[in-house]
Amino acid sequence: MGSAIAVPAADNAHDVTLVGTHLDGDIIAALKADRGRHPRLGAPLPPGIEPLDIGELHAGHFETADLIILEVSSAGMPWAVEHLLRYMGAPKPIALVTKGLVGGGTERPRTYVESLPEALRRGGLSASPIIGIGGPCIARELAERRPTAVVYASDGDEPLRRIARWMRTSTYRVSTSADHIGVEACAALKNFYAIGVSAMWALHANPHCPERPYAINPAAAVFTQAVKEMGRLVEWMGGQKETAVDLAGLGDLHVTVNGGRNSRLGLSLGQGMSVSEALSGPLNGETVEGVDTGRCLSRAFQAALGDGVFDASAFPLTQSLIGALVENAPFAFDFACLGHA
Amino acid sequence: MGSAIAVPAADNAHDVTLVGTHLDGDIIAALKADRGRHPRLGAPLPPGIEPLDIGELHAGHFETADLIILEVSSAGMPWAVEHLLRYMGAPKPIALVTKGLVGGGTERPRTYVESLPEALRRGGLSASPIIGIGGPCIARELAERRPTAVVYASDGDEPLRRIARWMRTSTYRVSTSADHIGVEACAALKNFYAIGVSAMWALHANPHCPERPYAINPAAAVFTQAVKEMGRLVEWMGGQKETAVDLAGLGDLHVTVNGGRNSRLGLSLGQGMSVSEALSGPLNGETVEGVDTGRCLSRAFQAALGDGVFDASAFPLTQSLIGALVENAPFAFDFACLGHA
Repeated sequence: MGSAIAVPAADNAHDVTLVGTHLDGDIIAALKADRGRHPRLGAPLPPGIEPLDIGELHAGHFETADLIILEVSSAGMPWAVEHLLRYMGAPKPIALVTKGLVGGGTERPRTYVESLPEALRRGGLSASPIIGIGGPCIARELAERRPTAVVYASDGDEPLRRIARWMRTSTYRVSTSADHIGVEACAALKNFYAIGVSAMWALHANPHCPERPYAINPAAAVFTQAVKEMGRLVEWMGGQKETAVDLAGLGDLHVTVNGGRNSRLGLSLGQGMSVSEALSGPLNGETVEGVDTGRCLSRAFQAALGDGVFDASAFPLTQSLIGALVENAPFAFDFACLGHA
Repeated sequence: MGSAIAVPAADNAHDVTLVGTHLDGDIIAALKADRGRHPRLGAPLPPGIEPLDIGELHAGHFETADLIILEVSSAGMPWAVEHLLRYMGAPKPIALVTKGLVGGGTERPRTYVESLPEALRRGGLSASPIIGIGGPCIARELAERRPTAVVYASDGDEPLRRIARWMRTSTYRVSTSADHIGVEACAALKNFYAIGVSAMWALHANPHCPERPYAINPAAAVFTQAVKEMGRLVEWMGGQKETAVDLAGLGDLHVTVNGGRNSRLGLSLGQGMSVSEALSGPLNGETVEGVDTGRCLSRAFQAALGDGVFDASAFPLTQSLIGALVENAPFAFDFACLGHA
């Protein structure tokens, strides 16, 4: 995704430095050998993108940069902060492709647009504007310039609009939002809920009907429920519930249930595997970010239920998913919780 | 669908009379010969469902009925009204599975929950409560008792809740809504918008990648746009825009883009066919209800645009679809209309 988002930037004639982490050595080496062949995306990168090993990065790269786009896994965020503090002499706008929540305790989980400025400030760097990115955006399609619409969000109007203009192309349609917490919360939560929606495809499948194996009514009903529960959690986390019915919420959820690791985990759960069986079996060695989101959410969500902040009946899907993803229970969703008059 | 919705009714131990129109003679004859084999659903019907030819219907059936469930095509509505007036001596609750809009002129189109009571009153029958039904509900899955959640809507609280209880089973989860216009508007509009979402799968497909032919980012972005535009049209028609982000709106849209005639028409349009080519080619002889919805909507929508009721920029997808479905233009959707800061 880091490479893919370089494509609209380069298409807008920006000079892009594409820096790999220590885990991306093979990608950077391949691009240095032949920029026409990205080993993962299967699409050539446009001119104007300079591949760089992490060992080659220095403060000069930051001095001349107008925008830092950060795309590491959730687990890589402390590493990213360390490198920002080491090399970024003055505050620069940072746009976050990394998705996830910060938490795990009984306090409400927080988004990176809230935690990253603090982490930078603790290191003596005043907070530069931090921009969250949401919306449907599979990397490969972005690199192939198939059209999509995404949202950039920060708590200030400028430089948000200017940065959106820098990145917007005829196929990468960037809108802006002031609900940076809501956009980032949706971007993390959609992975979590996609596991539940995809599980429904398989949970009520008809094994006797190979040409039409997956049930679509249950998944559509649970998709609707996911959007509702996402909106409630977004509001609890300090965002706007309407953000869940826009690109970062239902739009990205729609893409995420149509492929990828979260969806594959959901299918495994729907077929009767436990999360530990799926993660040591068909998804062995893969990072499934919806599971991390569930872990970040679990204790705080339970605490909120216990404190009466929530009505448990408003979150049947969230509870099912926490049971399956955090407590290793078999995935189940009781439709009897829906449809009370 | 008429047969399928008899399943939850019969599962709740109601006596169900399943009346075919003159077009359903073969289904009724097959069921009379063997109720265990429905020729379309491929699932046995439960006991308590009595198949009946239209010629066998008489006033006595209405006298003893607690609820009439009406499922004819949009084109069959005048026929249905004629039969209701002929046989229904006293007002009875009527639940509408039939979806569609009434219109075609420059006046706002209306839903059947508005037009049917009037049609009955013109025939001298006072309006019985009319209930609209929305939500994801593919007939075959309903008959197979795969779970789903739907919404029954009328403008009165009772007998709506009582009827919802009559129909609700452990897998057919019925909730209720007072937004009968919104639910019915969504039920019709979702067919129209599903054509556009499905067109996007194909419009930006990669012919060189047979294992992953359809682009999912564009469809997800347009799915989000469809839900927004649906909400705006629902509000214009007198319903509540929130209904578009619930079961009857995005829930049913999610099912409808995953199969069926509207979705197949969309794929044909995305592959470059005009609607007339598709309807005389791969969809020859089939009723595609989203096309009828487009025709009902077109002149009134254009008039509202002309009168400044709408901002044209809020309806790019609606305009694309009207162009393709009503004016036989090639289907196109310009992403440049999305993403203004």
